[in-house]
Amino acid sequence: MTTLCIANNRTEEMVGDLTGMTPLEQRFAGCGAQRMLWWAEDGDVLVLPWGPDPEYLAYVTGLTGVRADSLTFVVPPPGEQGDQMLTTDRLADPGFRAELRRALDGRAVDEVLAISPNGAVAELAAALGMAHAMPGHPFAAQGGNALVNSKAGFRALAAGAGVPIPPGTVAGSPAEVEAAIEHLLVQGHSVMVKVEYQAGGFGNEILARDERVDAAGAERVVPLPDRASVAAYVAERWTWLTGGRGQRVVVERYFADSAPLYAQFIIDDTAVVLSGCGEMVMQPVVIGEITPPVTPDAEVTAELVDQAARLCESLRVIGYRGTVSADAVLTPKGEIYFHETNGRLTGSSHLHDAYFGRLLREEHRDARYILELAGLKVPSFAQAVAAIDAAGLAFDPETGTGVVYSCDFAPADGSVMYCVIAESPEATRALETGLLALFAG
Amino acid sequence: MTTLCIANNRTEEMVGDLTGMTPLEQRFAGCGAQRMLWWAEDGDVLVLPWGPDPEYLAYVTGLTGVRADSLTFVVPPPGEQGDQMLTTDRLADPGFRAELRRALDGRAVDEVLAISPNGAVAELAAALGMAHAMPGHPFAAQGGNALVNSKAGFRALAAGAGVPIPPGTVAGSPAEVEAAIEHLLVQGHSVMVKVEYQAGGFGNEILARDERVDAAGAERVVPLPDRASVAAYVAERWTWLTGGRGQRVVVERYFADSAPLYAQFIIDDTAVVLSGCGEMVMQPVVIGEITPPVTPDAEVTAELVDQAARLCESLRVIGYRGTVSADAVLTPKGEIYFHETNGRLTGSSHLHDAYFGRLLREEHRDARYILELAGLKVPSFAQAVAAIDAAGLAFDPETGTGVVYSCDFAPADGSVMYCVIAESPEATRALETGLLALFAG
Repeated sequence: MTTLCIANNRTEEMVGDLTGMTPLEQRFAGCGAQRMLWWAEDGDVLVLPWGPDPEYLAYVTGLTGVRADSLTFVVPPPGEQGDQMLTTDRLADPGFRAELRRALDGRAVDEVLAISPNGAVAELAAALGMAHAMPGHPFAAQGGNALVNSKAGFRALAAGAGVPIPPGTVAGSPAEVEAAIEHLLVQGHSVMVKVEYQAGGFGNEILARDERVDAAGAERVVPLPDRASVAAYVAERWTWLTGGRGQRVVVERYFADSAPLYAQFIIDDTAVVLSGCGEMVMQPVVIGEITPPVTPDAEVTAELVDQAARLCESLRVIGYRGTVSADAVLTPKGEIYFHETNGRLTGSSHLHDAYFGRLLREEHRDARYILELAGLKVPSFAQAVAAIDAAGLAFDPETGTGVVYSCDFAPADGSVMYCVIAESPEATRALETGLLALFAG
Repeated sequence: MTTLCIANNRTEEMVGDLTGMTPLEQRFAGCGAQRMLWWAEDGDVLVLPWGPDPEYLAYVTGLTGVRADSLTFVVPPPGEQGDQMLTTDRLADPGFRAELRRALDGRAVDEVLAISPNGAVAELAAALGMAHAMPGHPFAAQGGNALVNSKAGFRALAAGAGVPIPPGTVAGSPAEVEAAIEHLLVQGHSVMVKVEYQAGGFGNEILARDERVDAAGAERVVPLPDRASVAAYVAERWTWLTGGRGQRVVVERYFADSAPLYAQFIIDDTAVVLSGCGEMVMQPVVIGEITPPVTPDAEVTAELVDQAARLCESLRVIGYRGTVSADAVLTPKGEIYFHETNGRLTGSSHLHDAYFGRLLREEHRDARYILELAGLKVPSFAQAVAAIDAAGLAFDPETGTGVVYSCDFAPADGSVMYCVIAESPEATRALETGLLALFAG
């Protein structure tokens, strides 16, 4: 049986208007899309923005035990946005579709697995006669993915499910946004404003009156000493706040010094099944994560999972199928507030489904931590691999510990994303220190 | 116990940008808001765009058996859009809120009942300390009403629930909209395009290639003889199609000669409860309706109710509470396709909840039809009432038949909306003929 993997690593549902992405952001997205390789099984067909780098392909398949030459890669011609993302126009290209049909000819496709199961993928699946193989196809074909990723829609769904969300609201006009921000600021709280469609904290800003606040989860902190400055801020930032197209704006209380957590589920026709939980490492926006999470105790983690499951159950009932990450914060007072769902394969999905699921043996899975961070500058991917091999730091399936390079960002900025897998959080940090030393100076 | 009734008869969730409404449309909306009187019980407090006309108030309360002098009316000052709608700014007016608090002082409010249970009403309810009395408050406070009324969101929810919808899709870019339209036209179908937020067919247009089509359910039929004309149409109408703010566009197959049906439910915490079904009278957009519906047989009606209930169950799970009308068409081939939900008190709500529920005695309810139409020009509301009294056509609770004036549109265009209640569809038409004769010439 064949899986058709579609590495559409940035879509409008994820980040809003794609034309707003810089060339470098696009290149990072293109590199990130190559992580689809972690999902491949023997004989699968992968649609990628560009063909895989041979070193990275050999590395990933070496770890997953897949025969690299059994995989088929199909790359559509560049689209209006270039060649780094699988945009709607690229997935609709007639020449690409003809090639994809040839690649799939004679294979029994039992799953269409996309990073973002959006309308463009649903349309492609239908055109290939494989709608049945795409989980949640009816919902996706009607743009349902936008509902699951909307930060505005999220607050209604969460409130409707009785899942705790930060105090705040969803506002549509400048006057309403101003009032909602002021309402929180005058109570002495700081505020997070969010653009409806964005990812990784890039659509968030923190607003504060008197407090000094660290900008965790946002690009910056904006001081707004009085109501007039709130009005001026809303007027100045209106186009950005509304995604340039009249979207609604999320205004909610920001909880400083909180731990950002997530619980990830796979939703099928009958149930929502936990993949795992984790904790984001922020600086100030997400730079990595650790799983299992280290800050919450067992009781808090159980509550996180419970509440996230209720949220996912609502998404199941409305028709979404696939992976959902439900993101929350744990405040210093021990309260959990959810702030978004992401209906797609996320960075965390790789940790749970690929590394825990495919690299670690059964007996290690309950006794390992994975810390993943990005931004390690290396001479080349091949040299990075050689260096950990030589130093004895490379992941070893026997011990279920070691370093894994999860993503090759060389084409973007010469860096890799790396995972350190060890028996404890401290051991992951020790291993990371050893890794970083290999490339220092 | 007191109900706080809020007659917000046009909201952004219903019709999109309110500033696009003409003064006459606004006045019709203001008159329609007065129908809130049909819901009032002794001692209730009603927030209206303007104070009720004494004749209309006396007429409605005469039929519902409510003591008119037991009702309290609170009218906020005009807002930016004038005095015909209960817009967000009017509901937030501090002087109005102070007056409303005084009106409610000492009363136990057990329900906040709005025409459109939107965020502005939720905010008001919370400010009054009555959030608990507004069904579905958590969902409404986070803008959930927009989800229930979005024609784009509808298609995903319906598809996800497995409820039949017309072939088509939800599209975001001009290229996608053009492709979706052409895809249906080349198959020989005509097409309906819909603006995400609109009501009563005013956000719909029908597109046809060769077919001659009646414009039922839309303002006009646009001939598009080839793909170039489709592209030109999409380019020319883009601002309108996207609500002027980048909304998504619904493109679906249009079924000519179909009967527009609805099933209306009340959703509470534990169940969805059928209020009734009906059939719209179109010319070309909705001008009235009849209930029970006359075109479908019992089996088709049962299917309509079944499917609508599944749709409403999804809305219940995500947190909506209150009235929902699920609208569908019955094609000449006997297929049912749903095309939108409206989360609010609708025109139909008056028929089911007020006329069937309050005017008709128990023993008549299963043996009466109500036909409601608008546009009967009358000298004045008082004279219209006197005329049916004199002619013996006025509604008589003893027989459960006769004429009811449901809405007074005199301030808009000198007309009334009227209901004829009789034992059969034919008898309603006969009674209507008698009514129209009173005002002919």
